[in-house]
Amino acid sequence: MSPGATKGGSKGPFEGIVVIDLSHVLAGPFCTMLLSDLGARVIKVERPGSGDDSRAFGPFLDDKSLYFGFVNRGKQSIALNLKHEDDRTLFESMVKKADVLVENFRPGTMEHLGYTWEALSAMNPRLVYASASGYGQTGPKRTEPAYDTVIQGVAGLMSLTGFSNGPATKAGTSIADITTGIYTFGAIVSALYAREKSGHGARVDIAMFDAVLSILEHGLMHYAATGKVPERLGNRHPTITPFDTFEAADKAFVICAGDNALFASLCTSVGRPELATDARFSDNDRRTENAVALRAELEAVLKTRPAGYWLPILDKAGIPCGSINDVASAVADPQVAARNMMITAGGVRMPGNPIKISGYEDPTERSAAPALDASGTAIRAEFASPRAAK
Amino acid sequence: MSPGATKGGSKGPFEGIVVIDLSHVLAGPFCTMLLSDLGARVIKVERPGSGDDSRAFGPFLDDKSLYFGFVNRGKQSIALNLKHEDDRTLFESMVKKADVLVENFRPGTMEHLGYTWEALSAMNPRLVYASASGYGQTGPKRTEPAYDTVIQGVAGLMSLTGFSNGPATKAGTSIADITTGIYTFGAIVSALYAREKSGHGARVDIAMFDAVLSILEHGLMHYAATGKVPERLGNRHPTITPFDTFEAADKAFVICAGDNALFASLCTSVGRPELATDARFSDNDRRTENAVALRAELEAVLKTRPAGYWLPILDKAGIPCGSINDVASAVADPQVAARNMMITAGGVRMPGNPIKISGYEDPTERSAAPALDASGTAIRAEFASPRAAK
Repeated sequence: MSPGATKGGSKGPFEGIVVIDLSHVLAGPFCTMLLSDLGARVIKVERPGSGDDSRAFGPFLDDKSLYFGFVNRGKQSIALNLKHEDDRTLFESMVKKADVLVENFRPGTMEHLGYTWEALSAMNPRLVYASASGYGQTGPKRTEPAYDTVIQGVAGLMSLTGFSNGPATKAGTSIADITTGIYTFGAIVSALYAREKSGHGARVDIAMFDAVLSILEHGLMHYAATGKVPERLGNRHPTITPFDTFEAADKAFVICAGDNALFASLCTSVGRPELATDARFSDNDRRTENAVALRAELEAVLKTRPAGYWLPILDKAGIPCGSINDVASAVADPQVAARNMMITAGGVRMPGNPIKISGYEDPTERSAAPALDASGTAIRAEFASPRAAK
Repeated sequence: MSPGATKGGSKGPFEGIVVIDLSHVLAGPFCTMLLSDLGARVIKVERPGSGDDSRAFGPFLDDKSLYFGFVNRGKQSIALNLKHEDDRTLFESMVKKADVLVENFRPGTMEHLGYTWEALSAMNPRLVYASASGYGQTGPKRTEPAYDTVIQGVAGLMSLTGFSNGPATKAGTSIADITTGIYTFGAIVSALYAREKSGHGARVDIAMFDAVLSILEHGLMHYAATGKVPERLGNRHPTITPFDTFEAADKAFVICAGDNALFASLCTSVGRPELATDARFSDNDRRTENAVALRAELEAVLKTRPAGYWLPILDKAGIPCGSINDVASAVADPQVAARNMMITAGGVRMPGNPIKISGYEDPTERSAAPALDASGTAIRAEFASPRAAK
């Protein structure tokens, strides 16, 4: 059974759904990329002249931003100035026919343009109107400027990432933007499902700050339980040992031996069976208390051979383990090709769609991100009928 | 307009939806927590005796796992042994009446129990059957064991997190599990939406490895463009400067001045207006090339005063900035209470629901995670009717 490999099905569950996408840079476009990957028609509305800011973000290939190209694959583009009357008329005729409107402006921007939720909903009661923002549409911080790094700092994630003897560290990807994008996608789809029952749209309000707070898990629950501020744990698990990175002769790799049976198997596999019966390591609580001593014992033997020696041995013993791959090695893993997880769009390689649902295509090639206003003329003709323009 | 503050609405878009939840630990339970928060009835099926492994994970409060309590709030529990005939009969009568089945076993486990997608779909053609796993249901690595830390390593995220002169670093939360949980939620909801049109369910297959690969963004696109393996960037943005953490007299904080206007405003705000016209810093590309020199210039003045002096000044000037909050400070931010983002379930404080959709309740109190088999008797009575048991 291979949902991802289905060929010749329809494009996705959202075929026929029209999304007007006013969003820019990352959180909003990541959300609408998922909708597009799953069959929706996404019309990206950009400001005339320069368009989405991220068109100017590197890395570039043939003068085109790959950052922009990744999250805007499969979309159409039209340039509209929402302060100009003609463009407003066209935009409103689009709103009347659309299913979803997505934006990630600073809260208040749409209201200043006259496009409150009440106004948009009056134009089209079936519209799902979704906003992604730094702090959300409500609350005292709603209008504060925020970027991914600000939110990783303010919401506490940065304080939990890194080593106890080192600085607070940003996750190496824009996790605040991206979790917000995925949540916004899920929320829009939830509202579309509800519309099937109720007949009317809804207002969706996702905040990067809320998103990051919602994913802190152990660090936040530890604080809730003890009132103590959690320290940075480096690469180790807070309560399970050994569950960390360990140094081999050449480099570090990951071992996660979460219970007594796996730990005993690990000790045997590395030629140190006596560690499994050592009183310091007799159960998980003892191992967690004596994590420093356990690391020393394990690394004393692991450092005698390279990681490439140990990994197949532990794999064979069924012990969860893995390389710390760089991006080139990760992408080269045969699992990636087997799951269509590197695709091509406009000649550029990029991650595929991780949402595998049976009955739909999961293509290895998607259409390129659009040039600014590439579909402007066609979309104007489609939506600016004499009646709609009235 | 405050979607999150709606009172007295219905519980959520999934009221009436029945979810059978065979999942354990984090990725699956996080997904079904979102479904439960949005109104679905989630029946957690656990193995008799010890139940979900995470019931034994700290931190604990009154001998109850807060880790378990967080992601299993609002759910019901029944203990079933899926190798025993009576329990299988009950499980199958539940499958016949359910909308969604979620599991995150090692691929192959459900097939060994006789519960292939084909078999489950034959019992209930409207069933949405979702699996979350380390490497997915397909491909050469499908049966390899995987935990969050393994996947953060193998999929390349760890190689991108941390400083260039330090070790590869795990994000300080289980981001592989959690993004998988949110993607699985979005995929299930997409399949429920599609079912409204088609009348039949679908098979959903989400892999932690795919999920992490899909969120690498800049690091992966940089490699796609140049063929060069990206280095760890610490806290700085790859292509925008200044967009990083900077040291004040007492501690570091975040400044994201992404364009020339913000940079000029930053320079003025810290009393160094001449930096804005310094040839080394005249535009973003120059600033990125000369990031080390720019840091030295900025920190020379920032280090003369504490972060608490600078933040209000930069805030007032509209420059995106923020504290590196510990978890206690993050939770105490008035924005958290304003958005219902810390709630109580079973007397324990925990993150609320970040998916704010108008027309539904967003309660500050939810029901506690269940004791093992707490609803066993009632659920047996409900589903084991003489007809269903046939």
